[in-house]
Amino acid sequence: MAVQQEILPIQTRRSGLVEITAEVARVVARSRQSRGVVTVFCRHTSCSLVIMENADPSARRDLEAWLDRLVPEDDPHFTHTTEGADDMPAHIKMALTRSSETVPFAEGRMLLGTWQGIFLWEHRDAAHVREVVVTVLT
Amino acid sequence: MAVQQEILPIQTRRSGLVEITAEVARVVARSRQSRGVVTVFCRHTSCSLVIMENADPSARRDLEAWLDRLVPEDDPHFTHTTEGADDMPAHIKMALTRSSETVPFAEGRMLLGTWQGIFLWEHRDAAHVREVVVTVLT
Amino acid sequence: MAVQQEILPIQTRRSGLVEITAEVARVVARSRQSRGVVTVFCRHTSCSLVIMENADPSARRDLEAWLDRLVPEDDPHFTHTTEGADDMPAHIKMALTRSSETVPFAEGRMLLGTWQGIFLWEHRDAAHVREVVVTVLT
Repeated sequence: MAVQQEILPIQTRRSGLVEITAEVARVVARSRQSRGVVTVFCRHTSCSLVIMENADPSARRDLEAWLDRLVPEDDPHFTHTTEGADDMPAHIKMALTRSSETVPFAEGRMLLGTWQGIFLWEHRDAAHVREVVVTVLT
Repeated sequence: MAVQQEILPIQTRRSGLVEITAEVARVVARSRQSRGVVTVFCRHTSCSLVIMENADPSARRDLEAWLDRLVPEDDPHFTHTTEGADDMPAHIKMALTRSSETVPFAEGRMLLGTWQGIFLWEHRDAAHVREVVVTVLT
Repeated sequence: MAVQQEILPIQTRRSGLVEITAEVARVVARSRQSRGVVTVFCRHTSCSLVIMENADPSARRDLEAWLDRLVPEDDPHFTHTTEGADDMPAHIKMALTRSSETVPFAEGRMLLGTWQGIFLWEHRDAAHVREVVVTVLT
C-alpha cells in the first residue's frame, strides 16, 4: 500500500469554475502508480468541488448562473452577513456541491469520462488562493 | 494493499433512478476481500449517483419529480441548448447530486443501512448505456 | 496497507447539524497511522453529511433555514407521506448533500481547513440515534 499526498494552491479570480484536472493528473503521474483512486479535498467552506463538462464553456456559465439564481445574495432571511453579502450564499452553494471527490485511475491515468473535468468552484466574489489536498491511494 | 477495479455498463431506459446495489455488491464479492471501502464513480456529466431509500418506489418518484420541478427544462436563461432541452438541466441535476460515492464494507458486505440502495440517476430523457467504475480498496 | 473501521452512534436531538469532527478525529488517532484518508459514511436516507463552517453558529442556522425553505414539508406534490410530513423532505435534503465524505490526514491529523467541521445533518424533526461508519485507509 502506498499513500502519496500533495497540497495544491489554486488561484481563483472571481466566482466561478476553475478547472484543476491537469493539476490532479500531474499528482497521479508523479506517484508513478498504475491503478488506484485519487481523492481531492477542498479545504474551505466558501468554495467547493464539482465534476462538470469541460468542453463547452456555455454549460459551465449556465450552471453558475442557475446556482446564483437559486441562492441569491439579497435573501432577507440571512443573519450571517458580517463577512459580506456573498458569504452565506457561498456556504450554501458549497453544501449543495462537494467537498471531496474520489476518482479512479488505471495505467496511471484517471478514468474520467470523455467530457468530464474536475473543477474548483469559487463561490466568493473576490479572487482567492485556495488549497486542495490530493491523495493517491494504491 | 489491494486495488480491484471494474468498469460496469449500466443500461438506463429513461430519466430516473436505476438501482445498482447488486452490481456493486458483486464486485465486492469477486474481490474476496473482507474489509475496506468500495468507491463508485460515474463517468458522465448528465447522469449521477445517489444513495436513496430502496424500499418504497414512491419516495424515488417524489425525489425525481421534485428535482424536475427545481430544474425545469424550459428555463429561458439557458444558453447551452444545442444538445436538447434536457441537456442543461441534466448537468445541473448531476452537479447537485454526486459523481462519486465511497461505501465501507466488512466481512465482504457493504455496510449500507437497512433502507439504503446505490442508484445511478439518469438525467437525460432518452435511454443510454452509462459506465460506472467500481474500485475496491483494502 | 491497513484498514481500520469503526461504527459510531450519533445522537441527534432534532433536525439540524450535529458536529462529529472530534469523533472522527479520535478514530484517526486510535488508528496510530500517520498519513492517509478517512472516509465517513452515513447509513441513513433521512440524514446526511456535510462539511461546514464550525465557527459562527449563525452560518449553520442560515444554511438549515435555507434548505427548509427550498424543500418545504407541505409540498402538495408529495405522495410518500405515510411516515410523516418531514419524511420526504428529509430524503430530498439528504440527496442534495452527502452520504460519504473522504478527508485526508497527515501526521495523524485531518487536513481540514481552519473553519471546517464535519457534521451529521439530521433531517427528521425527532431525535434519532444515527450510525456513521468511519474507515481509515493508509
